[in-house]
Amino acid sequence: MDNPLVSIVMGSSSDWSIMQQAARILKDFDIPHEALIVSAHRTPDRMFEFAATAIERGIRCIIAGAGGAAHLPGMIAAKTTLPVLGVPVTSKYLQGVDSLLSIVQMPKGVPVATFAIGEAGAANAGLFAVALLAMGDSTLAKRLESFRAAQADSVAAMTLPES
Amino acid sequence: MDNPLVSIVMGSSSDWSIMQQAARILKDFDIPHEALIVSAHRTPDRMFEFAATAIERGIRCIIAGAGGAAHLPGMIAAKTTLPVLGVPVTSKYLQGVDSLLSIVQMPKGVPVATFAIGEAGAANAGLFAVALLAMGDSTLAKRLESFRAAQADSVAAMTLPES
Amino acid sequence: MDNPLVSIVMGSSSDWSIMQQAARILKDFDIPHEALIVSAHRTPDRMFEFAATAIERGIRCIIAGAGGAAHLPGMIAAKTTLPVLGVPVTSKYLQGVDSLLSIVQMPKGVPVATFAIGEAGAANAGLFAVALLAMGDSTLAKRLESFRAAQADSVAAMTLPES
Amino acid sequence: MDNPLVSIVMGSSSDWSIMQQAARILKDFDIPHEALIVSAHRTPDRMFEFAATAIERGIRCIIAGAGGAAHLPGMIAAKTTLPVLGVPVTSKYLQGVDSLLSIVQMPKGVPVATFAIGEAGAANAGLFAVALLAMGDSTLAKRLESFRAAQADSVAAMTLPES
Amino acid sequence: MDNPLVSIVMGSSSDWSIMQQAARILKDFDIPHEALIVSAHRTPDRMFEFAATAIERGIRCIIAGAGGAAHLPGMIAAKTTLPVLGVPVTSKYLQGVDSLLSIVQMPKGVPVATFAIGEAGAANAGLFAVALLAMGDSTLAKRLESFRAAQADSVAAMTLPES
Amino acid sequence: MDNPLVSIVMGSSSDWSIMQQAARILKDFDIPHEALIVSAHRTPDRMFEFAATAIERGIRCIIAGAGGAAHLPGMIAAKTTLPVLGVPVTSKYLQGVDSLLSIVQMPKGVPVATFAIGEAGAANAGLFAVALLAMGDSTLAKRLESFRAAQADSVAAMTLPES
Amino acid sequence: MDNPLVSIVMGSSSDWSIMQQAARILKDFDIPHEALIVSAHRTPDRMFEFAATAIERGIRCIIAGAGGAAHLPGMIAAKTTLPVLGVPVTSKYLQGVDSLLSIVQMPKGVPVATFAIGEAGAANAGLFAVALLAMGDSTLAKRLESFRAAQADSVAAMTLPES
Amino acid sequence: MDNPLVSIVMGSSSDWSIMQQAARILKDFDIPHEALIVSAHRTPDRMFEFAATAIERGIRCIIAGAGGAAHLPGMIAAKTTLPVLGVPVTSKYLQGVDSLLSIVQMPKGVPVATFAIGEAGAANAGLFAVALLAMGDSTLAKRLESFRAAQADSVAAMTLPES
Repeated sequence: MDNPLVSIVMGSSSDWSIMQQAARILKDFDIPHEALIVSAHRTPDRMFEFAATAIERGIRCIIAGAGGAAHLPGMIAAKTTLPVLGVPVTSKYLQGVDSLLSIVQMPKGVPVATFAIGEAGAANAGLFAVALLAMGDSTLAKRLESFRAAQADSVAAMTLPES
Repeated sequence: MDNPLVSIVMGSSSDWSIMQQAARILKDFDIPHEALIVSAHRTPDRMFEFAATAIERGIRCIIAGAGGAAHLPGMIAAKTTLPVLGVPVTSKYLQGVDSLLSIVQMPKGVPVATFAIGEAGAANAGLFAVALLAMGDSTLAKRLESFRAAQADSVAAMTLPES
Repeated sequence: MDNPLVSIVMGSSSDWSIMQQAARILKDFDIPHEALIVSAHRTPDRMFEFAATAIERGIRCIIAGAGGAAHLPGMIAAKTTLPVLGVPVTSKYLQGVDSLLSIVQMPKGVPVATFAIGEAGAANAGLFAVALLAMGDSTLAKRLESFRAAQADSVAAMTLPES
Repeated sequence: MDNPLVSIVMGSSSDWSIMQQAARILKDFDIPHEALIVSAHRTPDRMFEFAATAIERGIRCIIAGAGGAAHLPGMIAAKTTLPVLGVPVTSKYLQGVDSLLSIVQMPKGVPVATFAIGEAGAANAGLFAVALLAMGDSTLAKRLESFRAAQADSVAAMTLPES
Repeated sequence: MDNPLVSIVMGSSSDWSIMQQAARILKDFDIPHEALIVSAHRTPDRMFEFAATAIERGIRCIIAGAGGAAHLPGMIAAKTTLPVLGVPVTSKYLQGVDSLLSIVQMPKGVPVATFAIGEAGAANAGLFAVALLAMGDSTLAKRLESFRAAQADSVAAMTLPES
Repeated sequence: MDNPLVSIVMGSSSDWSIMQQAARILKDFDIPHEALIVSAHRTPDRMFEFAATAIERGIRCIIAGAGGAAHLPGMIAAKTTLPVLGVPVTSKYLQGVDSLLSIVQMPKGVPVATFAIGEAGAANAGLFAVALLAMGDSTLAKRLESFRAAQADSVAAMTLPES
Repeated sequence: MDNPLVSIVMGSSSDWSIMQQAARILKDFDIPHEALIVSAHRTPDRMFEFAATAIERGIRCIIAGAGGAAHLPGMIAAKTTLPVLGVPVTSKYLQGVDSLLSIVQMPKGVPVATFAIGEAGAANAGLFAVALLAMGDSTLAKRLESFRAAQADSVAAMTLPES
Repeated sequence: MDNPLVSIVMGSSSDWSIMQQAARILKDFDIPHEALIVSAHRTPDRMFEFAATAIERGIRCIIAGAGGAAHLPGMIAAKTTLPVLGVPVTSKYLQGVDSLLSIVQMPKGVPVATFAIGEAGAANAGLFAVALLAMGDSTLAKRLESFRAAQADSVAAMTLPES
């Protein structure tokens, strides 16, 4: 694959069942991307190095998924000015409420764009990354328009069983 | 001001005390922007027209603030492929928890990048808009780096009273 | 079936397992009704057209079910003066709390009558639609009285196993 | 005033600061209405008699406000087939979350149409009552349309201070 | 069985899986009791009659279980001065949080003694009924002491597997 | 005062603003009672001694108020078979939600009868204590009936201002 | 095993599935420890004796797990000045939110160090106990460093499937 | 002051009103300590350096306070094996619930000992630090015992006004 433009990171391979939704969207739009395991708590130096070098590696935006006391998106955002998209991964007992609050409630000065808990959020982070890249790429912008139109059509084609 | 690149919208003038934090950031970075009252529930047609014409008016991203059953960011996102940044405005009784969930829990297919409840979220939406525009503007990217460095310096300069 | 008096709408066919409870009640009371897929986020224009033309199509009230960031009931209410009954569909991770708050916390000016999360709410929206139609239909009012009486009888007939 | 069509009930005079929002809307639309103190817990017999005789008194719908363990709307609904609109009144410590859940989570069989916590919910219950009465009154329906149009205009006329 | 001293009531036979925990405790202590289906919403008159006649039937305290918008304990308490013990039955989507708040947050003037959500709460309501009856029955008081001592012994006898 | 029948305990004098509501009710009903500071966490031995000797001192029931991690009611209940009534005192940041859950969610085997958060709960614990004592005291039972009747009358006498 | 330095206590053998995570960590670090059943509510005297004698038995810190109205950690802390580490065990209906608040919200004066709900919290309480003991044991401190390094390596070695 | 044994850190000088409670306790016990501003998000490098060098500077434990998406305690814990005590500082809109969950819900492998939201938590973190240091300092252990005894006496000396 070409040099990745989007980097998808998560703290553990167990997050992949959620985060692959982001990867699928990027693949569908032919966006070069990478998916890496980077843990804020267990590999803090690796995380800092990842974040600090992302711009020079040509990364344009970062999608970070984490659960529980979910510090990965915010800490990456602390170390780079690239747009960081945070995905609250479902937690075992609190359904991702802890993940959501840990990601979205960032203090003034260091933003993390946050999406829904779980699969929907991961997919939407992928779509949002597409929208960011489409800001400077009219072909991609058109593909995004087409995606939306197709999506509308698929809803229109849904039928309900007889009640 | 030049043609706006960022549009800040909210459902009522009472949201301005929060949303002006976004405007201030954009002003500090000299980003041409506009601030408009558009209500999803009380002026739905105006909202749809606003969203549908934003691209052709040269808008690059939209910051939408709303409180309670906060539908404005999601409905604008439904009508445009531009990046939409949602700010949960504090609600009278539920402290913005309703606003946050109404904005962040979007279904797969239509993303809204969500920020913290209240002033911090509005300011960070502004900073995120700067980061988006900086993707294709190296001068702006440098200014964002400088902003971060100055922010770090101001923390380093803080002192505590004697305990 | 005769021209529908009640329209049941939902954002996806996956909502049908909940929303069919409303349809069943209407069927039991022989109320002409329709059930449609209309998505606020994925088919916004279709939604607006649906809402704007409901009165002229003879619809007397609308039952709208949605989950997560549930904007469908409120946005339909923004586009029609017909009574709109909102049903919070269970969401995957937050059990419908997000759906409930997104539907019930409407700002002053655009009401949505909200019912319980899930099946009970869908059935009760159906019963409430019957009550609305019974305001101008004494035969229907009597049938509703009978339904209530039968319901009371069925409770009275319940027995408990020996403890 | 003419014989009331809408009855507004609440458990204590302290609820009036919220519930008067419903009365104001009805007054603006010239809907004959009454406002009464009826407590589910402290005057249960009075409540039952109120509910059981509402139809014969010509009441067309009932707006019931209550806070905390808010049983008034549901218990009135248990004793009448009239449409019952529930308003969660803010509670001292839980901000009306207890009120909301106590009203909206009715079991299958006895519906209560629930509105937002506090003033917005009371006003919207009033507007919803207007919409119900407008189902059989085209003049009222037109007034409701006009109200909506004026509301949209007032939003369009709002301006923001310079940022 | 002798004339019942404790009445266990619930709104539906589906609550029995929880409420039988109360019955078991009473059975273990040889307290004459009854278990009845009484629904606040579906059989309000039956409920009022039950509550209003409980004293004259010789009932000494009432255990009432309910889920969701759980009005049964509070409404029974409104119609009798007997001690009413409320058990929040688990609800389908909100885990009994709605049941708990609907029962415990009673306004000043009409108390309901509330216990834990689910089985533990039902059993403890039974034990609390025993404690109430033991206030005037020294034999029962001694049996309650013995129960506690046996309970302590059973904990002391628990062992843990090797780690 | 005569030997106390009811003991009101709390962890700190700052809880008195809430707990005096219980004392007032007992005073109104001429129930001999005492009010003591007993802290589960800061005076555990005093608490155990208090609980272990309450029966022999002639106490018939105990009202215990506590806030935050509110262990006082449950720990007293662990050391006596007397009925223990728990009052969740409002906490500084969580509005008494922590107090409520810490008191009501007792495990099977050791019941605490729980009342509403704050003043209403304290007053109702007092009224519930009256109801317990009235189980063996027909004069007191009649006074409780009179209290209820007067309470109903005071609601009936409330008036609303003109809207 | 040598005289235990760390004592792991819990209210029931059913808590062992969670609490054994703490024991495993201590075993991995060769820390002499014990695991006991001590119930705050069912064996209060045993609990007090356990806490009061822990120092003289050579215990250096106590890990206490409890669920629901979780009083065990706080009450042990009330009876000893040893460091007490609290683990919120998952509860049946409220997912451990009640356990967490009952443990962490201790009043000023009696601290309980609280960890995450469930398995992660139990394991981390074990690791924290290691850190405490390592304060005076440089060999143990080095083993803890090695554990962390190995943990970082295991994250670095994780791979993701192809998307 | 002597070389500090305990380091108190917080992200902003606005946290001092809470965190000084920890400092006061340490001062009362004559524990050499320092108080520093270190922001996880705004000064990430400073934070990492602080955490990485704490051991060699002779720090024995770290008290870290943070609010909202509170990453400071967890990230410091990721960079040191010293005991880290986390204090959830109250947040503007969510009362510190976000702070608490962001701090306490750490994943297995990197523990943070968490205390109550706000002042009580800060004071208790200070007391817990004293308890840690007292593990190897019998004089300090005796002072802690004395503190507890004095605390019990002050509760015993509290009086209540007449009710």
